[in-house]
Amino acid sequence: MAKEKKAPKPKAQTPKGFRDYFGTEVTERAEMLAQIAGVYHRYGFDALESSAVETVEALGKFLPDVDRPNEGVFAWQEDEDGDKGDWLALRYDLTAPLARVYAQHRNDLPLPYRRYAMGPVWRNEKPGPGRFRQFYQCDADTVGSGSVAADAEICAMLADTLEVVGIPRGDYIVRVNNRKVLNGVLEAMGLSNDDQRDAVLRTIDKFDKVGEAGVRELLGKGRLDASGAYIDGVGLSDAQAEPVIAFLTSKGETATQTIENLKAAVGESTIGAEGVAELEQIADLLAAGGYGPDRIVIDPSVVRGLGYYTGPVFEAELTFEILDEKGRKRQFGSVAGGGRYDDLVKRFTGQPVPATGVSIGVDRLLAALREKGRIGSKSTGPVVVTVMDRDRMGDYQAMVAELRGAGIRAEVYLGNPKNFGNQLKYADKRHSPVAVIEGGDEKANGVVQIKDLILGAKIAESASLEEWQDRPNQFEVPRGQLVSKVREILESYS
Amino acid sequence: MAKEKKAPKPKAQTPKGFRDYFGTEVTERAEMLAQIAGVYHRYGFDALESSAVETVEALGKFLPDVDRPNEGVFAWQEDEDGDKGDWLALRYDLTAPLARVYAQHRNDLPLPYRRYAMGPVWRNEKPGPGRFRQFYQCDADTVGSGSVAADAEICAMLADTLEVVGIPRGDYIVRVNNRKVLNGVLEAMGLSNDDQRDAVLRTIDKFDKVGEAGVRELLGKGRLDASGAYIDGVGLSDAQAEPVIAFLTSKGETATQTIENLKAAVGESTIGAEGVAELEQIADLLAAGGYGPDRIVIDPSVVRGLGYYTGPVFEAELTFEILDEKGRKRQFGSVAGGGRYDDLVKRFTGQPVPATGVSIGVDRLLAALREKGRIGSKSTGPVVVTVMDRDRMGDYQAMVAELRGAGIRAEVYLGNPKNFGNQLKYADKRHSPVAVIEGGDEKANGVVQIKDLILGAKIAESASLEEWQDRPNQFEVPRGQLVSKVREILESYS
Repeated sequence: MAKEKKAPKPKAQTPKGFRDYFGTEVTERAEMLAQIAGVYHRYGFDALESSAVETVEALGKFLPDVDRPNEGVFAWQEDEDGDKGDWLALRYDLTAPLARVYAQHRNDLPLPYRRYAMGPVWRNEKPGPGRFRQFYQCDADTVGSGSVAADAEICAMLADTLEVVGIPRGDYIVRVNNRKVLNGVLEAMGLSNDDQRDAVLRTIDKFDKVGEAGVRELLGKGRLDASGAYIDGVGLSDAQAEPVIAFLTSKGETATQTIENLKAAVGESTIGAEGVAELEQIADLLAAGGYGPDRIVIDPSVVRGLGYYTGPVFEAELTFEILDEKGRKRQFGSVAGGGRYDDLVKRFTGQPVPATGVSIGVDRLLAALREKGRIGSKSTGPVVVTVMDRDRMGDYQAMVAELRGAGIRAEVYLGNPKNFGNQLKYADKRHSPVAVIEGGDEKANGVVQIKDLILGAKIAESASLEEWQDRPNQFEVPRGQLVSKVREILESYS
Repeated sequence: MAKEKKAPKPKAQTPKGFRDYFGTEVTERAEMLAQIAGVYHRYGFDALESSAVETVEALGKFLPDVDRPNEGVFAWQEDEDGDKGDWLALRYDLTAPLARVYAQHRNDLPLPYRRYAMGPVWRNEKPGPGRFRQFYQCDADTVGSGSVAADAEICAMLADTLEVVGIPRGDYIVRVNNRKVLNGVLEAMGLSNDDQRDAVLRTIDKFDKVGEAGVRELLGKGRLDASGAYIDGVGLSDAQAEPVIAFLTSKGETATQTIENLKAAVGESTIGAEGVAELEQIADLLAAGGYGPDRIVIDPSVVRGLGYYTGPVFEAELTFEILDEKGRKRQFGSVAGGGRYDDLVKRFTGQPVPATGVSIGVDRLLAALREKGRIGSKSTGPVVVTVMDRDRMGDYQAMVAELRGAGIRAEVYLGNPKNFGNQLKYADKRHSPVAVIEGGDEKANGVVQIKDLILGAKIAESASLEEWQDRPNQFEVPRGQLVSKVREILESYS
């Protein structure tokens, strides 16, 4: 190792907006991703792992989030023998790399190409509470098919995925909308210019927050927001605003009714009619596959991503209630979204390539599973073999080797064994179910002490409870019964 | 999406030294990492996932590879509201982040802290054939224990890991050496200054390549290398060089014999005697755990990492032979290495914290498993439901939904269905075992055609073989038997 000058000590800190994940935070996510990969695989999707680093040129500057078009990436310039080379950057999502991969390898890939990808992405944004600059995404996309059957399949797969990871039917809903229908609505409104059109799109994006009345005000004269500030409106007449309102509130009791409402909202627009027909087909295909409106619905109030996607748009919401920071009940909300985007590959090849896909918010879905109690129970630590006699480390190593050989998680205490109390504190910190003790006397008698730490904790909590009275929390067994007795205890708690 | 100006098309290419991984390349690695995590977990190690990005300050500039101390990292400077902030960089290994994590969270972590980590690391080096700038590492380390039991445990875990992923006993060996023994040898040599000491260390590092005679020459007057260039020697006398040679060649028939040879090599050196005693203890502990010299041996010829580590050093080698690029037989070689390093955390806290660990070369181990035929068989693709009538997409969706519901990987063809030949070509490219066909006639008669593509390929390969004659590669079944018949075919090939 290089010699260090007497320099000030470096700060032991993650960079701002980054964090570390420990133990079950890591393994629970890995397990969930493996379950999701299983569903994706069953649907015929193949794994793809592109590198974290792309050229800025290939990445483009298209953050999918229309709210923050200027948010950046982490980028640096290559240094090639002293000369400056390409600009490189960390990927900000998994879609831009997919476009590059597809353009680069298209002659070797099947067409259509169904692929899934899971891994971290990076955003050079101002970090905030619970908002990190590295987070996981988990995407599935079909490149090269313009058929709405591809969109319907993604929706069905999303529903299956949620159930497989542990969100029961009834606790989620996949909603489907279509950008083409919105385009038809905009056409039907007879807007005078692109600025007005963009203003209407921005307003629609606020539907989630301000609701129907709010959107009405914002499309018209304007609105006093919660902070007391007055937000200027788009300045449309009530009649002009009507198709947008009709669109956003067109969800009926049945898909058929919703479709009828949408037909009315798009009026004579050809693109609008096309969008409505696509939604109708998606509903039919899903019904044919057995995915009814209890799982997937046509719902024009889905506005997230409408500015980004070019056709069908999907969003998965969890519908069970949780308490927010202020203790108020609210729905858990969105955990996945996606849609059709037909322009990404064209950047590279000049040829339009239809594509559709979905991205699951891994961290939000994990949070949801914790809410449902599906994951997050305190993990059981290893059996700890304590060290009573440091010269007999070989004996203790033999014990852990036997336990591990029997598939039992086990470790020997590797700290300073002088203070036995510290060894038991360590076992406690490790959430160990069992400690094993073999001092000189035990060794001489061919026995070991087994300490049931879970029972010990229960007895400590409620010393008078009868249920534990006839069960000792520490007992002696012949050395040869170490594995079977430990297993017995572990099984009694599993 | 932002509007694009007419700009030149971006190149669809990975940056130099980066690559994409497809399908089984991704899933086989994921599976192997899960198996390794299982062993690490059984040994009481907890998962840790730190972020890919660290401050350059926290990372330090300590690439573990002494050959390339100046090789760099990918780094950039934070931009904070226009001001320049911290320098950030992608981690170049998983050990430097562990030191930072341990220093940052030490009050919350158990002591000793056993952790494993797996994930990509990045090196800003000149890429070469088969040498990438992003690759996976898979580490396990114990922080906070100075006991050689911690080192022995890592060696045992490494042996178990190799067997669990599919390297049979006899096809690998874990070799153990100790830097302290080398220090003792250097002491015994009576070197005049640090420069000479460093020169000897560099020479020892070449033992793998030049062998005993080469090291003798390089420690003395010098040596003509393979390219014809003359390499100056360190200038030691034969007598002075002797302890190094004795050290490097001290492996005996048994551990006891090796230990005796080492005792002779270190002479009167205290640190040397300490190192030999540690090796002796490690051998004893491993023997107590049942890990004999068929799996783990004391072998002073292990020189890789000796310049970096401060105590025991380990290396796992695969001993079976493969053919190299030139068709010559050679041993597969090293797939993992590690050792004790007691200075990393001290950088942050000022307190020395003993640590020991191992890093598995994930890509090399995967290559080894491919050599052994343990992985890499062509994966079976999905059942492809073809589209004979594009207006009946709902019927086809229903079929794939049924197949998937039965756990069978299946997809409907989503390309342009006009040319049926293209659909079968697609199925071929996907390595599909079965294609399902339902035209108008079949629909009317309540049947489907099932095409056994594996059998079809076999018949095409060897048309005259009798074994296939009484088995049709395409047949008609009632629609209701779709799932059971497809399953029957899949099971006949599994």
